Amino acid sequence: MEKKVITISREFGSGGRTIGREVANTLGIPFYDKELVEQVALESGFAPTFVEEHVEHSPGKTLFSYAFTPQGVPGVMNGLSTADFLWNIQCNVILQLAEKGPCVIVGRNADYILKDRADCLHVFIHADKDFRADRIVRLYGESEKTPQARLNEKDKRRKVNYQHYTGRNWGQAHNYDICLDSSKLGIQACTDIIIDLVKNSK
Amino acid sequence: MEKKVITISREFGSGGRTIGREVANTLGIPFYDKELVEQVALESGFAPTFVEEHVEHSPGKTLFSYAFTPQGVPGVMNGLSTADFLWNIQCNVILQLAEKGPCVIVGRNADYILKDRADCLHVFIHADKDFRADRIVRLYGESEKTPQARLNEKDKRRKVNYQHYTGRNWGQAHNYDICLDSSKLGIQACTDIIIDLVKNSK
Repeated sequence: MEKKVITISREFGSGGRTIGREVANTLGIPFYDKELVEQVALESGFAPTFVEEHVEHSPGKTLFSYAFTPQGVPGVMNGLSTADFLWNIQCNVILQLAEKGPCVIVGRNADYILKDRADCLHVFIHADKDFRADRIVRLYGESEKTPQARLNEKDKRRKVNYQHYTGRNWGQAHNYDICLDSSKLGIQACTDIIIDLVKNSK
Repeated sequence: MEKKVITISREFGSGGRTIGREVANTLGIPFYDKELVEQVALESGFAPTFVEEHVEHSPGKTLFSYAFTPQGVPGVMNGLSTADFLWNIQCNVILQLAEKGPCVIVGRNADYILKDRADCLHVFIHADKDFRADRIVRLYGESEKTPQARLNEKDKRRKVNYQHYTGRNWGQAHNYDICLDSSKLGIQACTDIIIDLVKNSK
């Protein structure tokens, strides 16, 4: 079956976003990453920076979020925690985007949200820690934390968030159609493999 | 770096062996599967059928194996359980095969045994249960157990054996350079991707 929607789940620093953007450019289809956060923000009433911070939060950290009310939409959270409220909106946004037409969606547990669509190619990009540590310093600069600490924190967040909302274990090959180690194969080879798979599915 | 040795770990019924054989044929390099069992049998003194049964056994099942002595090599087991004794021989055989030159090795935890060689491409082939159930009945025939029960038994064995001897979790994307779902991508596409990766690594 033709693969129209490509979801790319990725480890922080693995190059998954770069790969996704290049796949979308080559295939001439929309690429959703920050755009998705903006859409969720628009529908939730929260600021984009707040949404970005919370959609990958470990759910336990939202215990006190009931005190917040999104701007302009008082009372719509129906007793949900901020994370759960945003999760529901995110699910709807992703389902709608996939319905609109071919696209690449990076992160946001889209592999799970779109698991019942047969026209999706679900990809996981991972890489060894040295490769990722080097990459985040080059791309995002230094910070007061060591690159290793930054990776550990992000890895833990994504793992907890993914397990909480999907009931699956993060990084299990079974969750994806294809998993690629960008540190071993190279970012260009990963990009080419995905493009070929989509083209050959037609 | 040129990828000379391809290890293929696979779920029972996923087509990993078929893919491995086709990759070896196309690249014109040796394919080790049953041949590997025969080599281990030769070096251990056990019969090939006994080796095949025990190398994928869960280690707990070998508690009473101290009573057995391999034919022709009395006293060489040095107090090791049969599984551990065979594991040591298997490690040496696989290390020697990789040293001899380009090849494809299916199963036997070769991904872990050869993890320190940079000239290896480590592949994991998995597939959904319906695809595998259908395939094992077509390839190996019916048995008194249901296909699902046969899959569950084999999956459990491989998982326990892998975890015991490698300390890693079976099916984690991190253990491999590339993981492919043969039920979603098709056996031919999986074969082609591996061949291209090896050819392009030169």
